[in-house]
Amino acid sequence: MILTVTLNAALDVTYRVERLQVGGSTRVLAVAERAGGKGINVARVLRTLGHPAEVTGLVGGATGRAIRLELADAALPDAMVTVAGESRRTVAVVDEQAGETSVLLEPGPRVTPGQWRAFTARFAELVRSARVVVLSGSLPPGLPVDAYAQLLRIAGEHGLPTVLDAEGEPLLAALPERPALIKPNADELRATTGEADPQAAIARLREAGARSVVASLGAEGLLAVTPEGSWRARPPHPVAGNPTGAGDAAVAALAAGLLAGTDWPSALARAVALSAAAVAAPLAGSFDAALHRRLREQVAVTAHTPSTPSTPTR
Amino acid sequence: MILTVTLNAALDVTYRVERLQVGGSTRVLAVAERAGGKGINVARVLRTLGHPAEVTGLVGGATGRAIRLELADAALPDAMVTVAGESRRTVAVVDEQAGETSVLLEPGPRVTPGQWRAFTARFAELVRSARVVVLSGSLPPGLPVDAYAQLLRIAGEHGLPTVLDAEGEPLLAALPERPALIKPNADELRATTGEADPQAAIARLREAGARSVVASLGAEGLLAVTPEGSWRARPPHPVAGNPTGAGDAAVAALAAGLLAGTDWPSALARAVALSAAAVAAPLAGSFDAALHRRLREQVAVTAHTPSTPSTPTR
Repeated sequence: MILTVTLNAALDVTYRVERLQVGGSTRVLAVAERAGGKGINVARVLRTLGHPAEVTGLVGGATGRAIRLELADAALPDAMVTVAGESRRTVAVVDEQAGETSVLLEPGPRVTPGQWRAFTARFAELVRSARVVVLSGSLPPGLPVDAYAQLLRIAGEHGLPTVLDAEGEPLLAALPERPALIKPNADELRATTGEADPQAAIARLREAGARSVVASLGAEGLLAVTPEGSWRARPPHPVAGNPTGAGDAAVAALAAGLLAGTDWPSALARAVALSAAAVAAPLAGSFDAALHRRLREQVAVTAHTPSTPSTPTR
Repeated sequence: MILTVTLNAALDVTYRVERLQVGGSTRVLAVAERAGGKGINVARVLRTLGHPAEVTGLVGGATGRAIRLELADAALPDAMVTVAGESRRTVAVVDEQAGETSVLLEPGPRVTPGQWRAFTARFAELVRSARVVVLSGSLPPGLPVDAYAQLLRIAGEHGLPTVLDAEGEPLLAALPERPALIKPNADELRATTGEADPQAAIARLREAGARSVVASLGAEGLLAVTPEGSWRARPPHPVAGNPTGAGDAAVAALAAGLLAGTDWPSALARAVALSAAAVAAPLAGSFDAALHRRLREQVAVTAHTPSTPSTPTR
């Protein structure tokens, strides 16, 4: 079983509008709601792939109850822990005329030290039946910056491989606990390390403790630097659609690869195909299954020689 | 007691953001929630003025429960009727850098004919203890276009004066029931009658059945055409702020005037002062009490001779 952790779980709300009136009033044509947050999206993809996944994390308030109802509807095993605050909503406004989406992200509930201790105790129980742990997304207000470090330590005590998809200080603070895999995107690489060059940023993150780094570079595909070697994996052609959730699909494929002991080139090919198939699907956590099957055979994976960056920024 | 009716009650959510990123992601700095919809805003103002007001209308789902909790917090007597659908949220995104607010309006719950019959039965009980009835705002999906007409007929059977703040077909369908007062704004006058000239539009609405029309013309103040005479009431100076709720404050003052039997010039002066004081307050349903006291003495009310419009549009 793969355990996915979403500390800042969300109710993802989608508003379809004809045209967003900035500074005015816009009538919403249709409202859709679904449980979200990166770890929940990863679990949804894993479930569709046929891998049993359990979801844990923090939820609270009326929005927390709505998240849990939706998890039950999606048949995702729910091991969420309740906090007193109100879970966040994200509101995606899909502008049909402009063909663009604007997303509003609420901050999430304030978590107390006692609630955090209760969560880590529950997490320590849950890891006993897990074979891979995936930790994804932002931290809600009130959590210590080393929250992911604490969870990695607990997973490490059970010898479990871990995938961490985070950024900034929570990511940097977690690296000494040696996650098996981290999956930053280009923006997160730059924002976390201050390095403009992805390869230099990856090298820094590995020096700080990450065993393997798989960086998602948008249309360029994935760049993986691991103890077993380095690879680039590229989709055969660009895919248009909604990039939200593409990274989560890649994480799901990589976590499934860790579970199965798949070799890197195969796991990376699947991650690129699943990521592109997720872009083609309208909602995060979904993917276009036919496109996924087709692309899986077409992804180009090539060995890559890491270079020293020519222009370090600091 | 003044009974206010909000058929499409809402949970008004305010998001404070640094800068709205259209087509991108925006972090919400702070979330505030409050029961809304025009009739609820009117009741809130009446309560602050010291007039007992009761609120009725339709609520449903988790959002409906949140609306009722907030009514209880605000000590507004709650006679809402529950429907199966989900009450709407409105999301106001306050952009601090741009100094502008963008509002997203969900459609509201779909109401069945049986639920509407249950509401009219409840309304017929509630009017027995009311002395003025205020009907405000849009209709949720599923209601008949003559919903306000039906409620006006019931109030009329009890000889109650009625204030109607609506627009379009629901307003036109209600006029034969002879509401004591309607309060369209400039946009609503034009959209409802097709007349570009406010005076021509007011004349039409009175011909169709409205006893008195008090039109709110933004910074120009109010234009009242009544069986007792016609007046213009203007604020002494423009007030900057949030115009949402200014119309509801004017309706509250006019309803209080009907209850007390206040003469029109005094009632209009209070409506203009309260409306301007509402613009100066950040949330709909609130007003700046000191500004209200100061402005009340300074509003210029002048008799007005209705003219035939020089350029009728059709």
